[in-house]
Amino acid sequence: MNDEKNKINREALKSLNYGMYIVTSHMDGKINGQVANTVFQVTSKPPQIAAAISKVNLTHQYISKSKVYTVNTLAETAPMDFFGPYGFRSGRVIDKFEGAPHKTGQNGCPILTEHVVAALEVKVIQEIDVGSHTLFIGEVTNTEIFDESAPMSYKYYRENIKGMTPVDSPTYIPPEE
Amino acid sequence: MNDEKNKINREALKSLNYGMYIVTSHMDGKINGQVANTVFQVTSKPPQIAAAISKVNLTHQYISKSKVYTVNTLAETAPMDFFGPYGFRSGRVIDKFEGAPHKTGQNGCPILTEHVVAALEVKVIQEIDVGSHTLFIGEVTNTEIFDESAPMSYKYYRENIKGMTPVDSPTYIPPEE
Repeated sequence: MNDEKNKINREALKSLNYGMYIVTSHMDGKINGQVANTVFQVTSKPPQIAAAISKVNLTHQYISKSKVYTVNTLAETAPMDFFGPYGFRSGRVIDKFEGAPHKTGQNGCPILTEHVVAALEVKVIQEIDVGSHTLFIGEVTNTEIFDESAPMSYKYYRENIKGMTPVDSPTYIPPEE
Repeated sequence: MNDEKNKINREALKSLNYGMYIVTSHMDGKINGQVANTVFQVTSKPPQIAAAISKVNLTHQYISKSKVYTVNTLAETAPMDFFGPYGFRSGRVIDKFEGAPHKTGQNGCPILTEHVVAALEVKVIQEIDVGSHTLFIGEVTNTEIFDESAPMSYKYYRENIKGMTPVDSPTYIPPEE
């Protein structure tokens, strides 16, 4: 393992491309959401999505219980202060949706109605333990489209918004490396 | 199911962001590779990658047998004719690497040495059946970086290269919809 580890240059991982999403869920009448970049489609028929979510996050707890989540694709119009509550603070101590326009989707998860290109409601079919994270794989049960503006890429978030990557992100790069 | 299906607008799925990759593998002394856009990192410690590969593809057969694959991140410099052999023809009938500069990585899979930003060698840890595709989840065992030019996004491929999406892609949109 150590030998293998030494051959890995984390810069290579940076060559992978992502979008920027707020993944939301609900549990026992409460709602929560978090920033995620690791979301992708895994099949076309039926349309299925996979999202990698950190086990330490409150949203993980909610999805595990309710078996539903919603992917809100962020637009390039989302400003830096939009990310604050979702990426770097826990729903355990703040209400992330206070002051953020939203509504409730068919699966009970919040859909953000500002700075979002589209929302995809997902019903979880499989939960895959990959260590620090769980891959929640599920079928898209409902969609909404808000506007035609460009979806924000992870690259755009880092280079233009000057956004940081939370320590519990799959794509976090440890400072010691 | 039908009711649910009617609520899905495939345009919403287009809001998800991807890169462009050639995923390669080997089996019994033979090598193969295919275009893929559905590749992402699922954990940071250790660095693990997931790739969704169609069960009908020869590369799927090779990865299932050898338990290794390599993700070659394409640069924006890759021209349209570069994609022909990898995306729309099968390694069962042509040698995809004839005329394409490449070398053999530590895991035995081919690494392309032109139009590639970085290569990530992966050892498969889990294979998840998601229907038409398998999610090959594995640990990154070796990396190589070729140049600092921009990785090609799926959006760039479609809008600038005018590239098509093969019918066996997870992000293929059926014409009848």
